[in-house]
Amino acid sequence: MSKKALYAGSFDPITNGHLDIIRRAAKMYDELFVGITVNNDKKPLFTLEERSKMVKRVVRDIDNVKIVTFDGLLADFANNKKFDAVIRGLRATTDFEHEIQMAQMNARLFTGETETIFLMTDPKFSFISSSLIKEVASLEGDVTELLPEYANEMLKAKF
Amino acid sequence: MSKKALYAGSFDPITNGHLDIIRRAAKMYDELFVGITVNNDKKPLFTLEERSKMVKRVVRDIDNVKIVTFDGLLADFANNKKFDAVIRGLRATTDFEHEIQMAQMNARLFTGETETIFLMTDPKFSFISSSLIKEVASLEGDVTELLPEYANEMLKAKF
Amino acid sequence: MSKKALYAGSFDPITNGHLDIIRRAAKMYDELFVGITVNNDKKPLFTLEERSKMVKRVVRDIDNVKIVTFDGLLADFANNKKFDAVIRGLRATTDFEHEIQMAQMNARLFTGETETIFLMTDPKFSFISSSLIKEVASLEGDVTELLPEYANEMLKAKF
Amino acid sequence: MSKKALYAGSFDPITNGHLDIIRRAAKMYDELFVGITVNNDKKPLFTLEERSKMVKRVVRDIDNVKIVTFDGLLADFANNKKFDAVIRGLRATTDFEHEIQMAQMNARLFTGETETIFLMTDPKFSFISSSLIKEVASLEGDVTELLPEYANEMLKAKF
Amino acid sequence: MSKKALYAGSFDPITNGHLDIIRRAAKMYDELFVGITVNNDKKPLFTLEERSKMVKRVVRDIDNVKIVTFDGLLADFANNKKFDAVIRGLRATTDFEHEIQMAQMNARLFTGETETIFLMTDPKFSFISSSLIKEVASLEGDVTELLPEYANEMLKAKF
Amino acid sequence: MSKKALYAGSFDPITNGHLDIIRRAAKMYDELFVGITVNNDKKPLFTLEERSKMVKRVVRDIDNVKIVTFDGLLADFANNKKFDAVIRGLRATTDFEHEIQMAQMNARLFTGETETIFLMTDPKFSFISSSLIKEVASLEGDVTELLPEYANEMLKAKF
Repeated sequence: MSKKALYAGSFDPITNGHLDIIRRAAKMYDELFVGITVNNDKKPLFTLEERSKMVKRVVRDIDNVKIVTFDGLLADFANNKKFDAVIRGLRATTDFEHEIQMAQMNARLFTGETETIFLMTDPKFSFISSSLIKEVASLEGDVTELLPEYANEMLKAKF
Repeated sequence: MSKKALYAGSFDPITNGHLDIIRRAAKMYDELFVGITVNNDKKPLFTLEERSKMVKRVVRDIDNVKIVTFDGLLADFANNKKFDAVIRGLRATTDFEHEIQMAQMNARLFTGETETIFLMTDPKFSFISSSLIKEVASLEGDVTELLPEYANEMLKAKF
Repeated sequence: MSKKALYAGSFDPITNGHLDIIRRAAKMYDELFVGITVNNDKKPLFTLEERSKMVKRVVRDIDNVKIVTFDGLLADFANNKKFDAVIRGLRATTDFEHEIQMAQMNARLFTGETETIFLMTDPKFSFISSSLIKEVASLEGDVTELLPEYANEMLKAKF
Repeated sequence: MSKKALYAGSFDPITNGHLDIIRRAAKMYDELFVGITVNNDKKPLFTLEERSKMVKRVVRDIDNVKIVTFDGLLADFANNKKFDAVIRGLRATTDFEHEIQMAQMNARLFTGETETIFLMTDPKFSFISSSLIKEVASLEGDVTELLPEYANEMLKAKF
Repeated sequence: MSKKALYAGSFDPITNGHLDIIRRAAKMYDELFVGITVNNDKKPLFTLEERSKMVKRVVRDIDNVKIVTFDGLLADFANNKKFDAVIRGLRATTDFEHEIQMAQMNARLFTGETETIFLMTDPKFSFISSSLIKEVASLEGDVTELLPEYANEMLKAKF
Repeated sequence: MSKKALYAGSFDPITNGHLDIIRRAAKMYDELFVGITVNNDKKPLFTLEERSKMVKRVVRDIDNVKIVTFDGLLADFANNKKFDAVIRGLRATTDFEHEIQMAQMNARLFTGETETIFLMTDPKFSFISSSLIKEVASLEGDVTELLPEYANEMLKAKF
């Protein structure tokens, strides 16, 4: 039976840490959906279209990855699409309490067999986050090695 | 000598986790004051009147609970009312560092014998917070079992 | 392609928390191996044979679970058997730092595509650990609801 | 109705941090029982008799404190004596996860209305623990200000 | 060879915790630069000029301290000035994960030999933060003992 | 004025994480003393002589490093030698609470100007500890890249 998983985020922008999780999760499932959240509240730096284009380009060499965008509750999206798993990356510097709280809430909201699955981030990506990258880039710091080349170009174009 | 305690929060809305702490604290003290904070900054979803009405209704079967509202510094309120204790719920997913910081600051500000007292939240409520409930409810997720029936009705009416 | 995973531990004794993870992991993989560690150092309460018998009995209704015992390095065992995943349960009260350290060490030792995968423990099992169960049982405390019936019988027979 | 609480530990030796919690808890309850655990496993430095004598002497100026010793499960002792509360001190440097796990296990084992109550340790005692005191004292370090005078004398006599 | 270090922050306002770190760091280096960040985003309570004046006054008795203001990336500033170290205060109640993440990002951005160095805050200052002081002072709570006298006067003048 | 610091540990064996801290600390101070603790309790795998020889060999290319061994209280040793600093490595997976507790205790025991200074470990060494290396090596796992070549040879000779 074919298994499919969701890796969701705002990818504003996509980082090498995200890409590492995507590559590893893509090997674990028949289909991996990368779900870009519309994220109306937080005012992303990149539009949904830009983030969609960026992620598509960055993962184009991975066969079984599909890019989707979604609005609303992650659990609703997972319930509708009957995902087997929702993937989360865990870093030593993660807000672990927040991750547990979300996973426990989602466990209640999942109507099917969806599981939240945590993968440990490679230590060399442990200090990378989209928001820190944006902060450093906005102050003209060099973030070249922290995100995929194409994402870096789009980021430079913003500042 | 009669003992009285304060359990303060914005209760925006009151959750089953709050209610559990209230029931347990009410057994520990002669009088338990549930103090609803005016909370001008954070822009609550419910008005102070709505929150007052909601909490009153939810705890009306507990004899020794009084609902009060207060503005300003919790420590001032506690000093004025000479509370024996200020109650806090601790969850495994609490921001523990923040709780310690507040408790130590309040210890300095308390002029009387007031103690900050922590009760451990029942694990089954550990992932519940008012803000997460509002987030899920605003996206039309089902939160029925996470808050008292009356609070849930008021919440539904908001969305 | 058939996927198989390992859930390893000393299961001294198996708890309802373990069983919850086993049931959920068994749904995620074609085959789930429950690997009982010989654990020479720590002086288990139950012999390897007893633990093997206990776990077999407790999971006998789950079709795709196999019980194995192993000695030596978990990574070697995973490498030899070409497991797709090693499953770990994460609790809010887990020693999270230790889990990360082990996962990062194992990531280096895995020669194939094995991933360490973390599942969040159901909050109602969050305070359960084999060692706490043994401590309470040895002092004649009631642990009936914390472990499978058969495991509880074997535990009672020890004290 | 008279309220009574238990503050348990091995007090091997009693520290200024313990004493601070005892003084504060004694104000909160009509009777405070300081329960010295027999602690067969850990090989205490002081015998039960020595610890009993030490604690009695140190708290003799606090009227409503009673010294008791107990063996076995804390929850059983609390159930038999119908304590209203079991007091724990929380330090910023506490093993918080362990405290939650114990409190949740005890919540299951308490048959009456006993609550586990956490008090925040005064920051100036936050780095003090009996085991660290013993370690430093055994290496001839000065710990005079970390424990009550009488306890310090008994400690010096040991080395 | 003369060694110089940077201790950066918004100092909005400077606290006794900051001052303690400054005094200790000043003993460790030939020159200590206290770098006040312009901090355009967060809307400080005090203007850059006010904070500059406040810090200068408070540290005027420490010979080898220089006050500077800077905009942009801390790492760029450190690279330009060739600081040997960037000093950070660590509190038991610090957001430790955030500190690690920043230190690891900066380690990548530092082009010279700059090291991030953490000093442990004195426990008696562990609950103090500029934001908590502002919150309490804005609600007319007494914060006199938490910050230097001159800073306290400037703070009072704001409310 | 010449500055000297102490980096103490049992180095049983020395790891690449230790070596990274030693190289960085050696640049910060005129003299860096690597202090090997006799460590009577914990039963080290290598004798004091072996550890001394191992560390000497591994750091022989760093000019301003001196190897010393010491028994008893670290603070006494630091007080006698008038070290300006005691260096500690902080990892994201460190037992941070324990580090704070030790630093605060030492702050009391230091009679001079000694400061405990924390350096952040490079993320790529974050999962490495001597005890984990010994555990893996004893089970014949490959640890080649985790410790200096000479230390690895001595480790192999042990198993």
